[in-house]
Amino acid sequence: MAGPISVDELRRLVRWDARGLVPVIVQDARTGQVLTLAYMNAEALERTLHTGETWFWSRSRQRLWHKGETSGNIQRVVDIALDCDGDALLVRVHPAGPACHTGAVSCFYRSWEWTTVSDETEGTDE
Amino acid sequence: MAGPISVDELRRLVRWDARGLVPVIVQDARTGQVLTLAYMNAEALERTLHTGETWFWSRSRQRLWHKGETSGNIQRVVDIALDCDGDALLVRVHPAGPACHTGAVSCFYRSWEWTTVSDETEGTDE
Repeated sequence: MAGPISVDELRRLVRWDARGLVPVIVQDARTGQVLTLAYMNAEALERTLHTGETWFWSRSRQRLWHKGETSGNIQRVVDIALDCDGDALLVRVHPAGPACHTGAVSCFYRSWEWTTVSDETEGTDE
Repeated sequence: MAGPISVDELRRLVRWDARGLVPVIVQDARTGQVLTLAYMNAEALERTLHTGETWFWSRSRQRLWHKGETSGNIQRVVDIALDCDGDALLVRVHPAGPACHTGAVSCFYRSWEWTTVSDETEGTDE
């Protein structure tokens, strides 16, 4: 489905936002589960490209962050896809353990199912 | 894996950014393919909750945008997950057609594979 691009094309096509960041979706390459949404700056992308493990920019701690550096739950990179306008990345990985600092496999561990909507939104402006 | 939350919990737990937006990962519920990264404001989320189809805030056009409004390729919502700190959403959908304005199934149609790295980054600081 996805067309192959070179690492230099990838570098060239990324559109960094005003903060110098790009949002990065991390997906388990084997299960397809979406693990987390994080951010990279140019240096985090370079470290990811060179090590084959995910590096991010922590907006809360304002520093580079090697995923798994304390937990050991590193993420080995399989491929990095770029969206149509270059302002988002999708990194497929083989995770060594849970992605979330809570211990959950995925950061997206809370969800609302559409099937419950008929009760909950009754009487609203639908 | 994901714990169920109510629609009111979902509303309460979303952390909007300084622009009043939250990034939204859209995933095909059947195939697991990540389709796009878009943004919602509070009104887009409400319309999504009430219609069961995805609505976004277009940053380039600065307006609400009902996915499929021109193409017909609407996305029926299956569930909406919230990440651990509430500043990203994952919406799983049944898409009526391609997600990307280019006609591609997913906006992430260009990718770089890690397997090519040994050639391309040779001689760098790895």
